[in-house]
Amino acid sequence: MVTLTDRAAMHAWSREQRKRGKRIGFIPTMGALHAGHLHLVKQSLAQTDCTVVSIFVNPSQFGPKEDFDRYPRVLEADREMLAQAGCHALFHPDVTAVYPEGFQTTVAVEPLGSDLCGRERPGHFQGVATVVSVLLNLVQPDRAFFGLKDYQQFVIIRRLVHDLSMDVEIIGVPTVRETDGLAMSSRNRYLTDEDRRRAVAIHGAMVAAKTAFEAGEKGAARLEAIARRILIDAGIHRIQYLAVRSADTLMPVKVITAQSVVLTAVKVGTTRLIDNVLLT
Amino acid sequence: MVTLTDRAAMHAWSREQRKRGKRIGFIPTMGALHAGHLHLVKQSLAQTDCTVVSIFVNPSQFGPKEDFDRYPRVLEADREMLAQAGCHALFHPDVTAVYPEGFQTTVAVEPLGSDLCGRERPGHFQGVATVVSVLLNLVQPDRAFFGLKDYQQFVIIRRLVHDLSMDVEIIGVPTVRETDGLAMSSRNRYLTDEDRRRAVAIHGAMVAAKTAFEAGEKGAARLEAIARRILIDAGIHRIQYLAVRSADTLMPVKVITAQSVVLTAVKVGTTRLIDNVLLT
Repeated sequence: MVTLTDRAAMHAWSREQRKRGKRIGFIPTMGALHAGHLHLVKQSLAQTDCTVVSIFVNPSQFGPKEDFDRYPRVLEADREMLAQAGCHALFHPDVTAVYPEGFQTTVAVEPLGSDLCGRERPGHFQGVATVVSVLLNLVQPDRAFFGLKDYQQFVIIRRLVHDLSMDVEIIGVPTVRETDGLAMSSRNRYLTDEDRRRAVAIHGAMVAAKTAFEAGEKGAARLEAIARRILIDAGIHRIQYLAVRSADTLMPVKVITAQSVVLTAVKVGTTRLIDNVLLT
Repeated sequence: MVTLTDRAAMHAWSREQRKRGKRIGFIPTMGALHAGHLHLVKQSLAQTDCTVVSIFVNPSQFGPKEDFDRYPRVLEADREMLAQAGCHALFHPDVTAVYPEGFQTTVAVEPLGSDLCGRERPGHFQGVATVVSVLLNLVQPDRAFFGLKDYQQFVIIRRLVHDLSMDVEIIGVPTVRETDGLAMSSRNRYLTDEDRRRAVAIHGAMVAAKTAFEAGEKGAARLEAIARRILIDAGIHRIQYLAVRSADTLMPVKVITAQSVVLTAVKVGTTRLIDNVLLT
């Protein structure tokens, strides 16, 4: 596995692969890799000829009071995991390689980016949309893989790529979970033992909504109430949002008639966690 | 010359050219073509293997009180000119081909985009940056050609492409002028005979500043005063801005020590005209 750190090297590597007729798969990450990331790598390895993973803790997607400074950085462990997984290239740029001197371009997807997580994290999705635009242009993949755990991010990136007519296919990959159902996340390592036990209720709430839906409940407010009850019963009171939305556009729905998604963001201790479930 | 009108056809055409190893040149326009546009086509023909011109009057770069409705649309004349010039493809999309249903992505280059023309035309450069991003992704040219008459636009596009690491070279082409010096513009056809005579002073003002600079004047305020005098003496009183700036960043300069540019925007009758001159 080759490690690339600057724009020119990344561009040259991709150009070389394309010239050889290789299809490039790409997984942008912030490092602190877990089984969820490795599942994305596996998908990419299966669907393309060579796989690039980027590791870049992007400052512009963190708010001033968020966890940028304490976000886990474990490059050597990450590199080892990627090499063992059969990844072909690690792109690990420093800040100036992503944001050159004088950088002043912003990509925004609005109103999608100000809803749900965007309400709690103003500017977050502008940061995401901008850095993903830069990374996609640098790596020029045929396919880019995103975990569906960050469902709103997935919808925004898919929208962005379609709107700007970028020549890349965006693939959403189902969430990988711990054995008790908690969605894998780099932020899970912040949880105390007590928080960790409590956090299981997040997936539990999603499953309860899905079960009710499959049993015939089509009212969004009713499904939200069922899921919310599970969270509160588990002692999770700081529910930033819990909403049933269109799976395609994330627009609110009252009665479910097309594919929908239940999404939630909660605080457990000091840690913000998100999860979702598709209602098909 | 082939005419393409939708995204898929444009993408396919470009993909085919690249597959054959052809270098693509691209000139985005709003139509109403004049000798300035044809000069861009000529540059592209000389520097690349095949040339695409787009004609799209982009609604999102016009303000609510601006001339979107009356902007000249003369497709058949334009097509004839391009075919005669040896252009290979005309891309003439309708609005939904550029902005598909649900479109909500914006590309902004700030603060560059709110300065100078951006002050008078809020949102204009966001509209330009967004549509140019879409068009560059659709056409995927090796080089894109922009007239230096729209100097701020050129700087913004160059910045955008660098910031987002788009794989295209942005070429600025010197302004083509009428024999009396007036910069070619699709909007010149709005001018009454009286306005047209008066408008010559715009280039006159730029030349006066350049002449004073070459004679040793390095003070920005002095050069601005010299140019402004020429405009006012010609009866052009509505000067939206007249400024000496860094040619690279468009930042204000007091004393000229590096390549600079004098830029102006004025109203002559009901018509807004811009021009500039480089001080090298």
